[in-house]
Parts: sequence; structure tokens; C-alpha cells
Amino acid sequence: MENGMKKRQEPETPTNITIKGILSLLMANTDSDDKRRVISLGMGDPTAYSCFRTTAVAVDAAIDTLHSEKFNGYAPTVGLSQTRMAIAEYLSRDLPYKLSPDDVYVTAGCTQAIDVALSVLARPDANILLPRPGFPTYGLCAAFRHIEVRHYDLLPEKDWEVDFNAVEVLADCNTVAMVIINPGNPCGNVYSYCHLKKIAETARRLNIPVIADEVYGHLAFGGKPFVPMGVFGSIVPVLTLGSISKRWLVPGWRLGWFVTSDPNGIFKTPKIIERIKKYCDICGGPATFIQAAVPRIIEETEEIFFKRTISLLKQTSDICCSRIKEIPCITCPHKPQGSLAVMVKLNLSLLKDISDDIDFCVKLAKEESVIILPGLAVGLKDWVRITFAVEPFFLEEAMGRLESFYQRHSVQPNGKFTRLKETNTYFLGK
Amino acid sequence: MENGMKKRQEPETPTNITIKGILSLLMANTDSDDKRRVISLGMGDPTAYSCFRTTAVAVDAAIDTLHSEKFNGYAPTVGLSQTRMAIAEYLSRDLPYKLSPDDVYVTAGCTQAIDVALSVLARPDANILLPRPGFPTYGLCAAFRHIEVRHYDLLPEKDWEVDFNAVEVLADCNTVAMVIINPGNPCGNVYSYCHLKKIAETARRLNIPVIADEVYGHLAFGGKPFVPMGVFGSIVPVLTLGSISKRWLVPGWRLGWFVTSDPNGIFKTPKIIERIKKYCDICGGPATFIQAAVPRIIEETEEIFFKRTISLLKQTSDICCSRIKEIPCITCPHKPQGSLAVMVKLNLSLLKDISDDIDFCVKLAKEESVIILPGLAVGLKDWVRITFAVEPFFLEEAMGRLESFYQRHSVQPNGKFTRLKETNTYFLGK
Repeated sequence: MENGMKKRQEPETPTNITIKGILSLLMANTDSDDKRRVISLGMGDPTAYSCFRTTAVAVDAAIDTLHSEKFNGYAPTVGLSQTRMAIAEYLSRDLPYKLSPDDVYVTAGCTQAIDVALSVLARPDANILLPRPGFPTYGLCAAFRHIEVRHYDLLPEKDWEVDFNAVEVLADCNTVAMVIINPGNPCGNVYSYCHLKKIAETARRLNIPVIADEVYGHLAFGGKPFVPMGVFGSIVPVLTLGSISKRWLVPGWRLGWFVTSDPNGIFKTPKIIERIKKYCDICGGPATFIQAAVPRIIEETEEIFFKRTISLLKQTSDICCSRIKEIPCITCPHKPQGSLAVMVKLNLSLLKDISDDIDFCVKLAKEESVIILPGLAVGLKDWVRITFAVEPFFLEEAMGRLESFYQRHSVQPNGKFTRLKETNTYFLGK
Repeated sequence: MENGMKKRQEPETPTNITIKGILSLLMANTDSDDKRRVISLGMGDPTAYSCFRTTAVAVDAAIDTLHSEKFNGYAPTVGLSQTRMAIAEYLSRDLPYKLSPDDVYVTAGCTQAIDVALSVLARPDANILLPRPGFPTYGLCAAFRHIEVRHYDLLPEKDWEVDFNAVEVLADCNTVAMVIINPGNPCGNVYSYCHLKKIAETARRLNIPVIADEVYGHLAFGGKPFVPMGVFGSIVPVLTLGSISKRWLVPGWRLGWFVTSDPNGIFKTPKIIERIKKYCDICGGPATFIQAAVPRIIEETEEIFFKRTISLLKQTSDICCSRIKEIPCITCPHKPQGSLAVMVKLNLSLLKDISDDIDFCVKLAKEESVIILPGLAVGLKDWVRITFAVEPFFLEEAMGRLESFYQRHSVQPNGKFTRLKETNTYFLGK
């Protein structure tokens, strides 16, 4: 039996890197003799810090629905009707048309919304266009669903905008969608109205829907406002993915949505709707009482709560950027304007004994008890992703340790460099 | 664009019937002019009735973890370690070996556990052995995961035991697992120790793991105690699926588990473990604070709560069976001993204008505002599944309406029959 079962063909497992996998390895690599607190700038989950607490309204609403004992039973697999209605109304506030509750499928966080989108689109020989850098769950999910991944680049020198030439070259008759993440993870960029419109027009020309991951929706603190992709739903069908995770600071509540922002009904044919519904039947969705709390959470959360988060993110992203400027081996091509993280380029030539981004992060974890994500995990070798949604005190501390790390590993013994701002290159100082 | 997008090859959607789909159709078919309450004996969710309320311990535990605000962030995708530990200990109570927390993957209900099991096993040309009658989510999930379904029969005349001959004939080198559901849904049967052992030995001979769906675990109120399949984990690897949904009467909390009950490590090779973990990365799991409540829920729930449920199910299953005996057109080959439902055979020859099980249920819904599940939904045409986990008053009322329905549709105008107990056949009475 033992041999027999082992001889049986094993299923193929995607070889994709996962963020959680890498972060666990880094965490395991910290030095237990280092008595300083381990500071993670690795995960997009700010709830570990008390300044990023959710609003009392959300907790109260969930406690009330739980306490009522009316919502311990199953919800429809597509979601409670009042929840679908509340999400449709919430999203419609920013759209030139009204979403119907039937456009909304309630999911276990945005993660499950990604799986619904990809699984509903999957078919033999399908391929999907993903941004690079991007969020690795897409690639992993595509691998499990047998969808070929084709990466188009985001352009750091153009505020991480989409490289449309790449998109046009990559798409073919088997392309089932292009994915955008806005506000951007891992880059912290926010797309303008014009750029989003150009994405819609490109997708229309290529005859593919846009999957718009807006899990960081409204978390924009720079000059550009957040514009939902659904605004262009009449140019091209948009599948909007989102959740209350980030804006309400409750990622652990697993309450997300998959929404067909498709006012002309191009994508949502009866067949596709049936497919989505059936797919929801095999998903374990979010808890019913959390769903039942959503209408009140959306309705009663005060603007001041959102403003406080935005202002805190502005503050921490500023801290992050100004500290980055003091560390010559890392540069940030684009000041973050949204989401919780920023992509930073490593200049390995300034480091004497660091071979690549993984090596950088492994040694940083070991020597400084600071965790940051190697760029390889999001598709950009020799970059790193820094999450700035961290309590300012700890962020300052972590950036200070990063600076010490740089000084210790600098090709120049004392690690001092003078930056020539005009050329953005570095010269050894005295 | 419109034409273009429509011309694009649409993904194939499984044609499977779903329980929720059929029940919605039946519900839509009730007569709004009927002022009586619609009574559903269709869904396995008893929480609509106050007698099937969960324990205060569960609600308090979840409110406390929610209130603590320590569990608003992400959990590891395999589940919180304390939750995995608590579930491992809970399940180990009934096993001859100790499960490790690493054997436990916390899922969004048993539904997601089914998807994890099937997706982890999926490979090209795979087939899976499912019981008939069974739970249709397996077939639907298998279709989405491109696993061929092969049904083996459960034998009504043998208390719905597995037809081993069928299993042996169906299995081949591409069979990836056989599924059992115990206590049984839809049949309400409970397998004996000996029968489960024989299942283990058969699976071992066929070189396939057993997927043991024990979502109704411990809900046994007949003569036979519930024995978990994991008891035979050293004969054959068992993948145990379960949840707190049914035993704790909180199906809407979406807290389940996928467990490798495989003390010899035959199934859980490093490669398979990696595959399970990666699969968990694309699943939106259960809410973190609900996970965090599980250790206390398991530890502090008093035996009296479980006993009360069991005694209520015994009472309602008795009501159901005795009322079935008074309605000649339906017979129950096996008195239920567990779970929440029972399969009942229709004798269409006693009904003048009912063509099949669907027609029976559609007309019953329309004329009597009573919903029961057509057997076709669980793989047995011209049977029906009756859920008896209903408040006794409503169950009596529903069974009374079923009797009126029979009388109105009986081939004999006054609907009276005399049952010859010995032969279990019916003769027209005066």
C-alpha cells in the first residue's frame, strides 16, 4: 500500500512563491538572541498596531448581529440580499450608473473574489494578463485553475502606469482578462481617470474584460483621487473585486465582493451568471452574521474614521519616503499615493556582500529583526516592498535599523554617500 | 465589441443540479395566496427554529474574541495555531492516535473543506468515487475541478451501507479517492465500526484515500454510536472533513476543517503538504475572530447542550417516521439514526397525477406551502429527502399537509389505504 500510494501520480503543485511563505521563512530567520522587537514591514495588515484600529461602529454592528442569533444559519451562497444591496449602493456612489444587488457576490475576503473571477473565466488554453510587479495570489490561483499567466510591466518611471505596448503584444484570442490593482499593491500608485479610461479602451479593443482589484479602494492620500474602474463599465465590462478589509481595517473578517460592473450586460450573460452562482455554491463564503453587519457598517461609519486612516497613511508614507532618501542603497522611483506599501529599488553595487533581494531581506531579518518583502515575491528581482502602514514609532525604528544595516554592508566602510539630486546617482563622500 | 465578446468561447459550466437551486425554485413556486406559513423540510439548517439555538458559550466566545480587537487581522491561511491545536485535540479524543495541529487546516465551513480535498487531489484524468444518494456539492466541485465522477450505490435495504462490489468495479488507476458521508446525508444512516473498517480495507486494497465527510459527526441518536473514519487511519489515509456547523448549530459561522488522519504519513508527503498549504493561500478562510473562539467553544460547551440536541433530533425523527407510516405513497426503508434528514421512497403508482419526484415537490410546494427536496437533487429519482430538524410543531404541521396532499392526489378518491405490514405493500381500503 505504502509504495503503491506513493507510486501513484502526484498532482502538480504550482511552484509559485507566496508572500506568506517568504515572510514565514524570514521570520524563522530572525535571531532569537536579538532582544529588540521584530518589526514587520512585510505584510499588508496594519491591525497589529493600535493606531490602525477599526471603528467601533463595525465591531458593534457585528456584535449585534451575532447577539441577535438571527444570523447563525446559512446565507444564500451569493450572499445575503441586504448585504448585496448595501454593497451595490456603496459602490454605486462613485459610478455614473447604479449597480443592482444582483451584480454583487459576497465573498470570503478579496482573496476568494480573485478565485471566483479566475475560476469563472477559466477555460482550456486560457491566458490572463497580470501586472508585474503584482500580487502573487493571482499567479498562484491562475496556476491552480490552469490559466496561463502573461505579465505586462508596470512602468516605474511613469508612476507605475500600465505598459500598453506590452498588453497589446501579449493579448490573443485566448486572453480572458487583464488584471489591474488600483490603488496599487505593491507599488502604492493611484491611477488617474485618464489612465483608467485608456485601460478600458485598450481592453475593449482587445475584447477582454478588466478585473479591477480595488481592495485598497479609497485608500488614496496623494494628489490623485481614487477612481473606480467601474466608472468605465460602459466602455468595457469590469469585474470589480473589493472588501471591507483595508478601508475598515478588518482584514481578518473575510468580507469581500466580486461585482459585475457591466451596465450594458456584455459580460454578464445568463450563462455566465449561472456559472458564477454555481461557483459560489462550492465556495464557503463569509460568516452570515458578518454579512448581516455590513449594511450598518457602511451606513454608520463616520467620515472622520476614514480621514484619520488617510492622514495616518500620509504621515507614515512620508516617514518611509524621507527615511528611504537617507539610505543610499534603496531608492523609491515613485512616492506612494495610495494603498499600504511601496516598491523600492535596491542598488546592490553599493553593498559589499549582498547578492540579491532575497539575500538582502534574509540578512536584514537576521541582523536587525526587520522583515521586508523581497521584490521577487511580487515579480521584481532586486527590489523590495516596504509596507508603511505601521505605527510611526515602529516605522522610524525599523527604518533606522535598515540604515544601520546599510552602513554595515556598505562598500564604503563608514557608509556615507552624497547624493547628487539632479542625476539621482550616488558618489562616495568623504 | 459586443459581438466580439459574445463570440468568444464561453467557459463550460457544470450542468449539476444544486440543492439550493432546486429549493429556490420550489420556494418561488409556493402560492402567495396561501396564508399558512411556508414550512421547509428541504435544507439542512435547523437554526431557523428557536429549539435549535446554539449554546451561549459559543456566542459569548465569539463576542469576546471580536470585542478583544486582537483578531481583526489576517490569520495564517492554514488557520490560527491555537485553533488547529484545539481541533486536533477535539478529534483525537475519539482516535487511537493523536492528531498534530499540523494535520488540521481550518476552512470556511465544510464546503470549503470539500473543495480543498478535491482540488488537492485533482490531476489529469482523475476520477473520484461518490456515494449515490449523496451530497451534490461533491459532484459540482468535481466538475469545476475536472475530476470525473463515478457513483457507487448506497444500499437502502442494508441500512444504506456501501455497495462494495460497485466500488471495486468502478475504481481504477486514476481513482484519487472515495467519499463517504457519515452520519449520512441524505440518508440519516450511521455506519458501524465493522462497516467503516471494511471501507478502510477496501480503500487500502484499491490504493486510494478515503474522504470522510463528518460534518454531522456526533449527531447520532439511534442505536449505533458515531465512529470517526480516522479510527482506521492506520489502515488507509483518511481525509476528515468537518465543522462546528451542525453539532454547535452555527452553520452560518463558516468554520470547518480539512484534516489528514494519516498516522503513518502515507498520504501527507512533503509535496502534498506543500500543495495543501498553497491551496489554502488562494482560499479566503474563516474569520480570524471566529477561529480564535474555537478553543473556548470546544472546551466549555457542556455535555447537556449536545444531549439536548440529540434528544430533540430523536424526537423529531420519530415524529417524521411515524407520520411517514400514515402516508401510503411514501416509505422510509431505514429509520434515521443520525444527521438531520432521511431519504423516503415515493410510490407514484398510488398517485394519480404526479409524474415524478420533481413534480411531487413542485405541486406540494404550490398546494401546501411545504418544501421538501426531490431525490433527483441527491441522485435518487422518485425519492425525496425530508429534513426532520424542525421544531416539532411545524414538523407535525408539515407532515399533516403532506398527508392532505397525498389524499388529494391519491388514485383512490378518499385516499384511504390499508397497509399490509408484512409485505410492505399497499391495498386500496374501503
